[in-house]
Amino acid sequence: MEFEKLFTTIRIEAEKIENQMRRDLTELLPTIDDLLAEVLEYGLLNGGKRIRPLLVVIASRLCGDSDDKIYRLACAFEYLHGATLFHDDIIDNSDSRRGNPTINRKFGIAPAILAGDFLHAYAMSVVGRFSGKEGLKVFCAATAGMADGEFMQLRNSVNTNLSELDYHDAIMGKTGLLISAACVIGAMYGGGNREQILAMQLYGDNLGCAFQIIDDLLDYQGDSAKTGKEVGNDLMEGKMTLPLIITLKNAADPDRKRLLEILADTGKRKECVDEVCQLIENYKGFNLARARAVEAVTIACNALQIFDGNSTLFERELLEGLAHYVLTRDK
Amino acid sequence: MEFEKLFTTIRIEAEKIENQMRRDLTELLPTIDDLLAEVLEYGLLNGGKRIRPLLVVIASRLCGDSDDKIYRLACAFEYLHGATLFHDDIIDNSDSRRGNPTINRKFGIAPAILAGDFLHAYAMSVVGRFSGKEGLKVFCAATAGMADGEFMQLRNSVNTNLSELDYHDAIMGKTGLLISAACVIGAMYGGGNREQILAMQLYGDNLGCAFQIIDDLLDYQGDSAKTGKEVGNDLMEGKMTLPLIITLKNAADPDRKRLLEILADTGKRKECVDEVCQLIENYKGFNLARARAVEAVTIACNALQIFDGNSTLFERELLEGLAHYVLTRDK
Repeated sequence: MEFEKLFTTIRIEAEKIENQMRRDLTELLPTIDDLLAEVLEYGLLNGGKRIRPLLVVIASRLCGDSDDKIYRLACAFEYLHGATLFHDDIIDNSDSRRGNPTINRKFGIAPAILAGDFLHAYAMSVVGRFSGKEGLKVFCAATAGMADGEFMQLRNSVNTNLSELDYHDAIMGKTGLLISAACVIGAMYGGGNREQILAMQLYGDNLGCAFQIIDDLLDYQGDSAKTGKEVGNDLMEGKMTLPLIITLKNAADPDRKRLLEILADTGKRKECVDEVCQLIENYKGFNLARARAVEAVTIACNALQIFDGNSTLFERELLEGLAHYVLTRDK
Repeated sequence: MEFEKLFTTIRIEAEKIENQMRRDLTELLPTIDDLLAEVLEYGLLNGGKRIRPLLVVIASRLCGDSDDKIYRLACAFEYLHGATLFHDDIIDNSDSRRGNPTINRKFGIAPAILAGDFLHAYAMSVVGRFSGKEGLKVFCAATAGMADGEFMQLRNSVNTNLSELDYHDAIMGKTGLLISAACVIGAMYGGGNREQILAMQLYGDNLGCAFQIIDDLLDYQGDSAKTGKEVGNDLMEGKMTLPLIITLKNAADPDRKRLLEILADTGKRKECVDEVCQLIENYKGFNLARARAVEAVTIACNALQIFDGNSTLFERELLEGLAHYVLTRDK
């Protein structure tokens, strides 16, 4: 499929999701506190990419029929995603997200915690309503797994012995689980059989990993005007992401020693972002990390091969297109 | 029923709940991060009163049969309660709970947020598994309502125009909703009919209100060695609770003016706890607040009158006993 047609379809679907979110908020607003309503509107209607709800919608169609209620179910994934972002921004003490002040910065820590908790419960209630018991189980497991994965990340901070496997586990928790759950629950809603649901899970796991690897690359290489984030943020916070892990493994002794020296010191991590970038570049850390993302996207697309019917060719191509888009995104 | 028999039964049931919690944790521990496991054990096995799970168990028996799986469902309420306490202690910047350092103080803010999120999802998954779709709906509504109620409390801080009705709404959100949900979901699990479920809701709403009014009284009048909390904490934080609301309404002009002067100033709120207590005492604020709690307990017990069968007399007496215990508790 040409990228243009892909983007048109995605844009139309993303708009339907956005409209459903607005309808949900309109329904909620009269029943909740004014400040909570303000925080939710600010935190949710902020130009997000809506990748997770999109996956729910497309997966459900790929695996069979689905009705318009799928948009209601799909939005639950954006609500849960929002809840985790609200809380992550407190944990990371972040000042801005997508170019705007974070909720903790604009409204304070208490509203950020509570609005996250509210969205969390709201997302669960939507999933409980529109998906079966099995769907709710997957959703809760993903949510619990995300919090568990964050603990791993807390402990991994400035752990210079981190392996690629540790990194993989951490990003599965952080990003893969919810993206995978979106694919699985969409497939369940569409009436997919066991093989189809497992294929969507494999697709989702790998798409999620690719997505997070690229996210971590953008942290070093992105244009902060586009990403809305400062370059080198992860490094400054001591987050061990793939380019750095690869470089630590491959670097010659003096370079490795220098990297460890920088990583061990909060001040140096802030001052030496350019130097670290150059070291990673020298050891092809960025290229090798990108190759891992390409590999994951390939596995994701191969998982879709079982969907070989003509009637769902369009949905399959959409998912393949989305996977390749992940590799090209710049924000 | 004599209090002694009540306490024996309650103690035995609370032990069964405690054992179920330990079994749940033992099942969870191998699957989660070590630090998360440590936080959960520290935060959950801390000598809590287990009121909410107890209500689930007794309500289910009062409304019909229930099996041993009820303990699994019941514990979900303690997990959700724990999640809200972890987050509340961050919001209130509390140093200690039940005489021990809070999780935010002992482990930091990030673990407190994340462990709360984990428990939140875990509680939902348990309710989704052991209670029907309707039960999950009640549980999610209570959870979302609690976060919404906290927003109200944030906005109510140092709002000296607060009415008793505002206070009632706030404590329903903070405490009433989850206690009420425990009663309702227990009744549903036991196979209660619509009238029985509504009766349990009325009981729960009023028990929750009484519970919180007494909690707020203990904040002024409690023995900090027993409550594990500093006396006058709410006042110092500018929380407008019932004794203060009543006193502001009833006080003569000079006293009212003095109270407003103290409330408007963070430093004075800390220095003048004794003076404020005396003013509340002078206007019978403590006694009038306690009278409201007694009234709520009376309504709660009256709601139980529809359970007039002999076979459930013991459970009914237990719930009546619990309601009266709420009035006498000192921690």
